[in-house]
Amino acid sequence: MNRIKCIVSYDGSKFHGFQVQNQFRTVQGEIQKAIKNICKDESIVIHASGRTDAKVHGRRQVFHFDTLREMPEKQWKRAINHFLPNDIYIIDSFLVDENFHSRYSATKKEYHYMLSMNDYSPFETNYIYQYGKELDIEAMRNAAKIFIGEHDFASFCAVDQYGNTIRTLYQIEIENNQGIVTFKLVGNGFRRYMVRHLVGGLIQVGSHRITKEFLEELIESKGQKKCLFKAKPQGLYLHEVFYK
Amino acid sequence: MNRIKCIVSYDGSKFHGFQVQNQFRTVQGEIQKAIKNICKDESIVIHASGRTDAKVHGRRQVFHFDTLREMPEKQWKRAINHFLPNDIYIIDSFLVDENFHSRYSATKKEYHYMLSMNDYSPFETNYIYQYGKELDIEAMRNAAKIFIGEHDFASFCAVDQYGNTIRTLYQIEIENNQGIVTFKLVGNGFRRYMVRHLVGGLIQVGSHRITKEFLEELIESKGQKKCLFKAKPQGLYLHEVFYK
Repeated sequence: MNRIKCIVSYDGSKFHGFQVQNQFRTVQGEIQKAIKNICKDESIVIHASGRTDAKVHGRRQVFHFDTLREMPEKQWKRAINHFLPNDIYIIDSFLVDENFHSRYSATKKEYHYMLSMNDYSPFETNYIYQYGKELDIEAMRNAAKIFIGEHDFASFCAVDQYGNTIRTLYQIEIENNQGIVTFKLVGNGFRRYMVRHLVGGLIQVGSHRITKEFLEELIESKGQKKCLFKAKPQGLYLHEVFYK
Repeated sequence: MNRIKCIVSYDGSKFHGFQVQNQFRTVQGEIQKAIKNICKDESIVIHASGRTDAKVHGRRQVFHFDTLREMPEKQWKRAINHFLPNDIYIIDSFLVDENFHSRYSATKKEYHYMLSMNDYSPFETNYIYQYGKELDIEAMRNAAKIFIGEHDFASFCAVDQYGNTIRTLYQIEIENNQGIVTFKLVGNGFRRYMVRHLVGGLIQVGSHRITKEFLEELIESKGQKKCLFKAKPQGLYLHEVFYK
């Protein structure tokens, strides 16, 4: 049995998210269909570092799968890309040992969220949230500090999710490049909708609708008071997954 | 009667070109549908500076139309955008006098063609031609000089077009920004497929498949020898239309 690790990039615009769903076009579904062409007699299931939601993009998502098929490791990249549609691309492929797991071996993840304060652009609409107004960048940078460290992020997670909502955020950087704002978040893990709620809350601070103190109240309430601001999926990128 | 001039930006990916066609989604068709919502009793036809082909993008395309409807000039931008799909956007609107004509008053046009020498990106596939190999930029810059000035560009136009193929090219600049190559062409006018044939020919020079001298032969043949290299539409942008 060979375990193959792939780094994959995808434009999320035309997918109903990552995870396989009957009758819907998904990233996992398309990748498994491509691999099926190569490993004809096997039933291959890929395991990603985590799911991404509909319209969310992947820059360097990671997945692995097991196969009996023997091939030089770099050949997998070429072979799978040959069968993939043009909005998914395998950047690299590796033969890894069986202790590697895309999800359980990941130590850190980096997400980026892109927002435009400029006039609307039809070219950016699927890739950068078209906010179209000025934001107070310094106020957002200042407020972002309260998220750093280990917290119970229950107030910033999807309401339908149970279980452990404690996560550690190592870094939030907010860059402004000619009106295009990029939020860069690095943490040991992110629950569903967590990045979009964190960024949504910061946008409210940046537009002076709420204060840093209100965001602090939310996080300290550990789920009792929910963050009601969720940034649109279009600006979100799973940027990188880190392993030991 | 009021003549309205609009500057419009569109992502050409999901259009069958600019010009109205029955049963196909076109830029002109969508804009006319939007205006129909505002000028209900009039039958509005818009006149653009020129057509763009399927998948070709517009950054600052210009069109005008005549209407009996009275509105402050900047209000037209807001009103039309309200009814437009998210891949078309009116950047600005003006009330102009009846001597203005989007096509006949245009004195110069600027087209950009974008090409990537880097590894494939699923995010760029509709916007930047994914060439994926190194090109000799200096050789292309040197060859581009032969196109400058007034020439009969018959060898670089669509085969099915008759009439005057004499045009003046004022400028071709070729920029390389971290592997993304932009060809910037400014001329008094461009016939159908002309930019894509000029860029296609230059790419052949940049990949050392043909020489500058061969391109010169083509242009001097005035249509007897056709340029067989036509760059893909995805990388092409009508960048700007100039008026006196």
